[in-house]
Amino acid sequence: MSTSTLLIACPDRTGIVAALSHLLAEHGGNILDADQHAEPPTADNELPPFFMRLAFDRSHMTLDDAGLRAALASLAQRYEMTWTLHDGTHRPAVVVFASKTPHCLYDLLVREAMGELPGEIKAVIANHDDLRHVADHFDKPFHLIPVTRDTKADAEAQQRALLEQYDAELVVLARYMQILSPELSADLAGRCINIHHSFLPAFVGAKPYHQAKARGVKIIGATAHYVTADLDQGPIIEQDVTRVTHRDDVDALVRKGRDLERQVLASAVRLHLQHRVLIHGNRTLVFR
Amino acid sequence: MSTSTLLIACPDRTGIVAALSHLLAEHGGNILDADQHAEPPTADNELPPFFMRLAFDRSHMTLDDAGLRAALASLAQRYEMTWTLHDGTHRPAVVVFASKTPHCLYDLLVREAMGELPGEIKAVIANHDDLRHVADHFDKPFHLIPVTRDTKADAEAQQRALLEQYDAELVVLARYMQILSPELSADLAGRCINIHHSFLPAFVGAKPYHQAKARGVKIIGATAHYVTADLDQGPIIEQDVTRVTHRDDVDALVRKGRDLERQVLASAVRLHLQHRVLIHGNRTLVFR
Amino acid sequence: MSTSTLLIACPDRTGIVAALSHLLAEHGGNILDADQHAEPPTADNELPPFFMRLAFDRSHMTLDDAGLRAALASLAQRYEMTWTLHDGTHRPAVVVFASKTPHCLYDLLVREAMGELPGEIKAVIANHDDLRHVADHFDKPFHLIPVTRDTKADAEAQQRALLEQYDAELVVLARYMQILSPELSADLAGRCINIHHSFLPAFVGAKPYHQAKARGVKIIGATAHYVTADLDQGPIIEQDVTRVTHRDDVDALVRKGRDLERQVLASAVRLHLQHRVLIHGNRTLVFR
Amino acid sequence: MSTSTLLIACPDRTGIVAALSHLLAEHGGNILDADQHAEPPTADNELPPFFMRLAFDRSHMTLDDAGLRAALASLAQRYEMTWTLHDGTHRPAVVVFASKTPHCLYDLLVREAMGELPGEIKAVIANHDDLRHVADHFDKPFHLIPVTRDTKADAEAQQRALLEQYDAELVVLARYMQILSPELSADLAGRCINIHHSFLPAFVGAKPYHQAKARGVKIIGATAHYVTADLDQGPIIEQDVTRVTHRDDVDALVRKGRDLERQVLASAVRLHLQHRVLIHGNRTLVFR
Repeated sequence: MSTSTLLIACPDRTGIVAALSHLLAEHGGNILDADQHAEPPTADNELPPFFMRLAFDRSHMTLDDAGLRAALASLAQRYEMTWTLHDGTHRPAVVVFASKTPHCLYDLLVREAMGELPGEIKAVIANHDDLRHVADHFDKPFHLIPVTRDTKADAEAQQRALLEQYDAELVVLARYMQILSPELSADLAGRCINIHHSFLPAFVGAKPYHQAKARGVKIIGATAHYVTADLDQGPIIEQDVTRVTHRDDVDALVRKGRDLERQVLASAVRLHLQHRVLIHGNRTLVFR
Repeated sequence: MSTSTLLIACPDRTGIVAALSHLLAEHGGNILDADQHAEPPTADNELPPFFMRLAFDRSHMTLDDAGLRAALASLAQRYEMTWTLHDGTHRPAVVVFASKTPHCLYDLLVREAMGELPGEIKAVIANHDDLRHVADHFDKPFHLIPVTRDTKADAEAQQRALLEQYDAELVVLARYMQILSPELSADLAGRCINIHHSFLPAFVGAKPYHQAKARGVKIIGATAHYVTADLDQGPIIEQDVTRVTHRDDVDALVRKGRDLERQVLASAVRLHLQHRVLIHGNRTLVFR
Repeated sequence: MSTSTLLIACPDRTGIVAALSHLLAEHGGNILDADQHAEPPTADNELPPFFMRLAFDRSHMTLDDAGLRAALASLAQRYEMTWTLHDGTHRPAVVVFASKTPHCLYDLLVREAMGELPGEIKAVIANHDDLRHVADHFDKPFHLIPVTRDTKADAEAQQRALLEQYDAELVVLARYMQILSPELSADLAGRCINIHHSFLPAFVGAKPYHQAKARGVKIIGATAHYVTADLDQGPIIEQDVTRVTHRDDVDALVRKGRDLERQVLASAVRLHLQHRVLIHGNRTLVFR
Repeated sequence: MSTSTLLIACPDRTGIVAALSHLLAEHGGNILDADQHAEPPTADNELPPFFMRLAFDRSHMTLDDAGLRAALASLAQRYEMTWTLHDGTHRPAVVVFASKTPHCLYDLLVREAMGELPGEIKAVIANHDDLRHVADHFDKPFHLIPVTRDTKADAEAQQRALLEQYDAELVVLARYMQILSPELSADLAGRCINIHHSFLPAFVGAKPYHQAKARGVKIIGATAHYVTADLDQGPIIEQDVTRVTHRDDVDALVRKGRDLERQVLASAVRLHLQHRVLIHGNRTLVFR
């Protein structure tokens, strides 16, 4: 089998599914998995937005990639579609940003080694040298780029150069303790995932576990979201929570939180790499 | 809008989605929600099974119900489909069987009253008189049909007569403490839902909370499944669990379990009434 | 058995547990369940706070209630304790406030009828007449006290009179859609439980499900807390969450949320009535 | 602070808590955390079992270890107690058994490196050479002891010698794919933890994910338990679950299951090393 994935957004009109499935079928493509969603109509006379994820087997298709893309482009014009087509044999290049805490970095690298990640981690970029041995153990290039207030612009220039060098399609901030500049955030829009150690929108900003302890919540969480220029405000991809009690001091919250961070970040990265996430405004649609 | 739902199962062939979506589109039907699943191919040369749920807006369709059914029947023959078409304006008739414990019965009736159930509870049948006041409060007919070993055949004949009288499309065993005969189970295949108070397949049979306590599990569950002639072995629709500790005696397990039973049974009933459940062998596909 | 419960807070000193357990043992009391917690020491030289919940069997005690209370008062003076003693045979009087939505009210009344609540619901007070039939069905007095901006002071005076008449020890706001005045909130401090339909501190205030939909969260929650003069800021007793997706519109969030509200409110009420909750500043300790 | 932990089981008599807390207090010990549980009385005239976990600060105690143990032994005789005393400064020696799958081994080693495990992993013993590089990376001795049906007795002799050499207080089977002999299981009773990849007692034995897929369950789980001679029947310490759907093939169940296995095994190991687990017959009491 040779599976490709098509992600589509357009105004909801009768016949979209028929047109798409006909296009594939007439050229020998077999739909393996289709998932779609239309927002409910609103009071204004606008067509509500329609979204679709299509996974299909290309192995018997009579159209090559260029032909398929041309056919899709023509359909897209008719239906005002935005679309992306992802070849299942391509493993997207991923670059991981880290600082000192190893748990998320180990987690991603072990998952890749066990075949759980449909992408390839090309390199680790860090603002401290502490995790070099982790990258080494997994045979990944490690780039130390320290960041201070004064050197931030320079550091981001180096980071950009590396991302270009590795053809990075996804950047994962694996407890990277620096805030990206609005410019870099904008340039990485929709392909940079951060893990925030709270159940957003609760406890935005610094020291969320201290905030959680102070408020006396009975559940803590973690949130993976796309990075935008607004800190902790980007589209949410995945969240999870766990119970805590008065016996849990801040250290215990931090420890429990680490388990959430690993799970939630890895899940968001997997969903993104499987082309299951569509961004719509400041929200995501996740086709599981 | 006038929404209908189509459930389909057939061998997986190229073009099914195209054919179906074309049929709807050419007659003015607009697909609102489509979800499909194909089992992976197996070693033998059989076509793997394909399943689909399609919700579509019929309000602008140029085919009436008979016309649509004729068109579907013709397509079904070509693709060896089994299919059911459900008109969204029809509220299926539900009959609830109960015994003495009120929590599931109250739960279903309150949900119906709040508009959560896309069906209509027509009557309550019970083998004890304890819950008559509950049915009365919600203005539902209550039928007392006591069951003993000797009168079981007779009792089931009365139950069948009532199910026929109410045109029951779904029977819900809401902690009904009698086992249906193999014949009645067979006749209600795929339209009779039971709630079992354990996480099946753990703790089949009687007194599952006592079994759970004895085994020292840390989590208990509840399972809603279609009734078959094999006790507690029917296709599972929904399950949920909750944590327990050594502090929970059997009474506490029973109490915690009741919360699960309510949630799980109501969820299964909703999913069934929304035509989101397809039975395949002894398993279900649930299109959420 | 005749079980009593003792709740204690005091500065952490060596010998507290010994002194308390000795007091009980020397008079024939048998400790059934003991749970304690001391906050970790802080930098200042203050003694950290110590908390304890003790359940004990009084049936063989040689001290009567007055004697026990005198002995405890003497110990309390020595250790600077605040303490409350709760006789297990006493079922606290509960008054439920409601508006139009029935799910929480039904839930509490069904639980009481099934013996799940260690208290007695004495009456229902509502600002609309919609739920009178629910109170009637469970043979509970129903008091209609409409509230408008102009009549609020008057209405609260009537409410206070009823709470006094029923010797209400606990007030439960079961989706009561009015905000209590700061004065009434203060007077009911520590004995008035509200259910907020979000995972606090996320989505404070009105229409939390709309806020949740707009922010695109993947999990929604509900929070039961003691009422204080600061809206939605009181000490949290219990929280729970459930997953949502882009398919869930606001109506679906409301429906899913109702299940959380029922569970969380009932759990908080049970914990309070079992004397398992200690308030410390704006947080609670819950001894499960 | 110098924290020690005392675990106690005895028949439930009035005065146990008083006697224990008095013993500690009179010698300057300060109780930090106390948790106890008494089983409810049964029909026979036996005293029900009583269990207690006491954590206390020894830094100001006037008794040395020998003196404290002598005092406890004397108390134990009076109350027919079994007891163990654990010095908080001692980090128990742990030996991990593994095979080929790395996720649980990595997880335990990363947690130890981050200070999450109150024990010290002394060595890794494996029946395959695949994970040597993992042990090397964390500077742990790696011992390859292949096991075949014929060499099993010999292999276990080598394993025993190593466990003795390392003074192993806990053995963790981190997806070790061999069954210990009844003799070794018996000798390691209460100090050998296994992770089973199902929600026991559902799906005992081999290939639980295949069994789960075949039965069509909607939730899968993992279970950490003490090893006994009866396969998968030992006392359960910890369990957790996750939702699955018809879209999850066996590979997906395996992947989702790995996340559970890591969490559940690490949690059980932590609870054991914190002396929070008491075994009673074939069940455990876990004092969290």
